[in-house]
Amino acid sequence: MINEKNVRLGTVRSSIRELFEYGKKRKAEIGEENVFDFSIGNPSVPAPPEVKLALKEIIDTYDPVELHGYTSAQGDYSVRNTITEYINSRFKTELTADCIYMTCGAAASLTITLNALLNEGDEVITFAPFFPEYKVFTEHAGGKLLAVECEEETFQIDFKKLEKALSPKTKAVIVNSPNNPSGVVYGEKSLILLGQLLERHSEKYKNPVYLIADEPYRELTFEKDVRVPYIMDFYANSVVCYSYSKSLSLPGERIGYIAVNNKSENFAEVYAGICGAGRALGYVCAPNLFQQLIKKVCGLTSDISVYKKNRDKLYTALTEYGYKVVKPDGAFYMFVKALEEDAKAFCERAKDYELLIVAGDDFGCRGYARVSYCVSPEMLERALPAFKKLAESYKK
Amino acid sequence: MINEKNVRLGTVRSSIRELFEYGKKRKAEIGEENVFDFSIGNPSVPAPPEVKLALKEIIDTYDPVELHGYTSAQGDYSVRNTITEYINSRFKTELTADCIYMTCGAAASLTITLNALLNEGDEVITFAPFFPEYKVFTEHAGGKLLAVECEEETFQIDFKKLEKALSPKTKAVIVNSPNNPSGVVYGEKSLILLGQLLERHSEKYKNPVYLIADEPYRELTFEKDVRVPYIMDFYANSVVCYSYSKSLSLPGERIGYIAVNNKSENFAEVYAGICGAGRALGYVCAPNLFQQLIKKVCGLTSDISVYKKNRDKLYTALTEYGYKVVKPDGAFYMFVKALEEDAKAFCERAKDYELLIVAGDDFGCRGYARVSYCVSPEMLERALPAFKKLAESYKK
Repeated sequence: MINEKNVRLGTVRSSIRELFEYGKKRKAEIGEENVFDFSIGNPSVPAPPEVKLALKEIIDTYDPVELHGYTSAQGDYSVRNTITEYINSRFKTELTADCIYMTCGAAASLTITLNALLNEGDEVITFAPFFPEYKVFTEHAGGKLLAVECEEETFQIDFKKLEKALSPKTKAVIVNSPNNPSGVVYGEKSLILLGQLLERHSEKYKNPVYLIADEPYRELTFEKDVRVPYIMDFYANSVVCYSYSKSLSLPGERIGYIAVNNKSENFAEVYAGICGAGRALGYVCAPNLFQQLIKKVCGLTSDISVYKKNRDKLYTALTEYGYKVVKPDGAFYMFVKALEEDAKAFCERAKDYELLIVAGDDFGCRGYARVSYCVSPEMLERALPAFKKLAESYKK
Repeated sequence: MINEKNVRLGTVRSSIRELFEYGKKRKAEIGEENVFDFSIGNPSVPAPPEVKLALKEIIDTYDPVELHGYTSAQGDYSVRNTITEYINSRFKTELTADCIYMTCGAAASLTITLNALLNEGDEVITFAPFFPEYKVFTEHAGGKLLAVECEEETFQIDFKKLEKALSPKTKAVIVNSPNNPSGVVYGEKSLILLGQLLERHSEKYKNPVYLIADEPYRELTFEKDVRVPYIMDFYANSVVCYSYSKSLSLPGERIGYIAVNNKSENFAEVYAGICGAGRALGYVCAPNLFQQLIKKVCGLTSDISVYKKNRDKLYTALTEYGYKVVKPDGAFYMFVKALEEDAKAFCERAKDYELLIVAGDDFGCRGYARVSYCVSPEMLERALPAFKKLAESYKK
């Protein structure tokens, strides 16, 4: 009688959330220090100290009517200008402020972009494993999400499978690198190939396929030789959905942006569609205080060396205990091969050792579990014996 | 090829925005002090000083990982609890924290509520004059907006016209009081009648009609004897969409909430639908810092005596000059009868005197113009001779 689809979405929790709630209950029962919660991607490292200083300075010195007032729907011009200068200094782009649309974080960036691009029945392709909300966002925009499996073990794009999945209905492809949940970074060669393939396909059907990069983890890489290529350097019809949630540890403040490549064939229409979709979805503007903050701290990140140390410690330990692990180049997730065929059963057994990890099934990839290592180094240390016992339980 | 409807929404500016942009240009040409801009509803009174103090205290004393981290999608429990205690102390409600869903402001409250309630083809009724974005929000949610004209001159609900507009397809009715653009407050008798009518209609078709109150202007009334009745006190199947944008002068920070009446027949489904719609639209949570702020300043308002003084001065002057004006009981808008049949021509002529006012046509009501008097008292004073000259120009 009311909207059943949304009632269902609001009733059925994602299994990540289920596990997170189980963890809270379990911590109350046996003590926080005895539960090893690797369920959620909530940054454990605080925002850099410059964030606190800048927030206080802004609040102290700006006129409150201006500071807390509406910005234009696209976002404050000088903020957008600062962001494009930063992007242009890092990549081969020549963006202007009018390529940027400030948003309430990555989820808003994606829903707005998908609502701008899609018509009823259009198809969106992504690569499994993938962030499960892509399906929710695509379906709300009237589209259908197709998940193309990645190559086994490397979790890089499988171009043969991608070619099969492309159809005249394909409107967009979403790439997420560094990837949640695999931690894999798609390399430059992959993106060049991807661009060429999509160009041929667009040409064939005289209908551009848009490449959407979902980039909340862009700044979270751990080796100097790992570069996350910028899709605009490889493909004209492209849109970057960025968020400061993970790079600045501000996930609850909802601040990010959409950048539309001004080399897109239909740049003006795409940007107008984004403005229109933002309006229709009820996003009046991104929070003004946090827009002004970004102007001051653009380019900074939290201390991500903590995540690197966690990755190294966890990777070394897990491989030593006999787990097969994709070594992550970025983000703060590790994708571990389950020690039995059914990853859900594996994650259930992990609970016997108070280990909370999420089955890959939810990310469209069976046989694996996601370990979110954005946790305190002390908790990680305490959890290692539990990972060891879990592995040993399969050897008996 | 991409979504035409959203491209159109992003291309065609509302005429309020058009006028606002014209004003910016004109100010650059002839000097800010010579343009009398009454086009936009941007609060001119700063947030109360407690807002600045509370923001600084929160930033100084809270753990940044907690403060800037995700809250649950519904919002922080203790924040929601503070809000319900406040509502229950003012009205006859017995709400709990689980009736509240924190949002990024009133527009988000409305889009989320409409997406929760509507199925394709459902009808939503509102009363003209009305805030034009209701149409955009309703259509995005798959519904159709019907505007029922208010009684002439009083701008109160016309129940005969409402009865004619109700149909088996009616899913919701939106009331906005104090009203944008008329400034009128719907009285208790009106709301009792409205509730009775909707109950009979719901009963007849065995299909509840939901009453949605859009309440950004609730706290903006100017006389002690003017009370804005709370719809939950009169009607069970009701939802309040609240925003702190105008009451605390924080429109750019995007903070508000949805309150679902726990006496609704399908309370659990409606609340779940709201959670689901919030998820599908990409609203992960409302900005955490501003949620925590609301916990500290809930119940405070900006100094609205400035708006009262503006209203009194403007009302006295305009009636003296011969304008017919609906005396507003609240909000910061005055609805003035145009001095010729075509209100658009009237507003065009006003520009000759550097007066920027918006034709009522955009609000679904011909023959009137909206004057937003949330301006500085000095500008209002300077503008009065222009209003006088405009009136005189029609007497020649």
